[in-house]
Amino acid sequence: MRIITVSRQFGSGGRELGKRLSDILGWDYYDKEIIQKLSEDSGLDEGYIDTVLTNHEWQSIPLSYNNSFAFISSLPTDKTSLLIQQRKIIESIAQVGHDCIIVGRDADIILSLYKPFRLFVCADMDSRIARTMGRENDKEDPRLTEKEIARNIRKIDKERAQVRQILSGKDWGEGTCFDLTVNTRSTDIKALSQMVADYALKWFELNGVT
Amino acid sequence: MRIITVSRQFGSGGRELGKRLSDILGWDYYDKEIIQKLSEDSGLDEGYIDTVLTNHEWQSIPLSYNNSFAFISSLPTDKTSLLIQQRKIIESIAQVGHDCIIVGRDADIILSLYKPFRLFVCADMDSRIARTMGRENDKEDPRLTEKEIARNIRKIDKERAQVRQILSGKDWGEGTCFDLTVNTRSTDIKALSQMVADYALKWFELNGVT
Repeated sequence: MRIITVSRQFGSGGRELGKRLSDILGWDYYDKEIIQKLSEDSGLDEGYIDTVLTNHEWQSIPLSYNNSFAFISSLPTDKTSLLIQQRKIIESIAQVGHDCIIVGRDADIILSLYKPFRLFVCADMDSRIARTMGRENDKEDPRLTEKEIARNIRKIDKERAQVRQILSGKDWGEGTCFDLTVNTRSTDIKALSQMVADYALKWFELNGVT
Repeated sequence: MRIITVSRQFGSGGRELGKRLSDILGWDYYDKEIIQKLSEDSGLDEGYIDTVLTNHEWQSIPLSYNNSFAFISSLPTDKTSLLIQQRKIIESIAQVGHDCIIVGRDADIILSLYKPFRLFVCADMDSRIARTMGRENDKEDPRLTEKEIARNIRKIDKERAQVRQILSGKDWGEGTCFDLTVNTRSTDIKALSQMVADYALKWFELNGVT
């Protein structure tokens, strides 16, 4: 079984790259699906789970969030419990045994024994802001200013780095933590995805992962 | 003209990868050649130049080094002057206009206007120590212990990072400073070189560099 894990900086286009890899290779794809499973298992609202997992505070989020069933007190509702639960789901994905792509959620560390191809997707801050603004324009939300987006990006970076530090003791984005780091700066993600797919397939061959 | 710049952590196999890229692609290759040119231009000993450029101290090295002609006082002998001289040589390489590979010496920053494919080669400390020890065994020098090698590697990292900071204001090894970062951990550099060559050729095409 071959697993590609996609770690990415917010706004780098990593999610799109992951989805395209899955389309090109025809492999299973896991991203929001993990949150959906967490939601099914726990009865908690997906939005609630997402908020707890991406929030950099470790205390509980008020349980009045959305239509959450969090009042069922025996369920895990705090960040630590949800991270443990998420870990189990990621491990169960690997146990299915299908070739797959997993975006985010530190699956590269959690599944290290399966020798995944660990991809990191990054871009300079200007490209990330531009990409995020393009995305924002599709929404009905009031548009954020460039400055606000930059602040949000830095906040998300910090949150991801924190979970990463806890799991691996290493700085997030360090080249040696990944098998390949690609920079999406001013690059067409579609063409880049094919290049990464080619590279990854050869990498699995080279490393005897089948 | 297509330029591949190879920045690398000491002991990562980056130099070998660069040489192999040049063999695969049939492109010009510059590494020690730059020091040789510096030596020809200045009349200074190659060993002396190398010592000055890789030494993390910025004061002058005693001029009694080897068979150096450094007593000719009008020639640049300090690190700053040599870095400026080296920069000019790297710029003149680009002016030749041939497709080429340049290893180290921050050519990616110096030649950024030529839109080089900026490769960074890294590996975890254990692999770097192992690779360096393998290399040491070929020499007649008394063997260094693992601990001494690790200390040397950290020292060289620090020195390279310092010049990098001066040139670009950025941390060395940051993913966003490069177009591709490859990890050579437990990987056959020969096979990896072919993968990187394929990727680089597609990258030039994608970015309209011919």
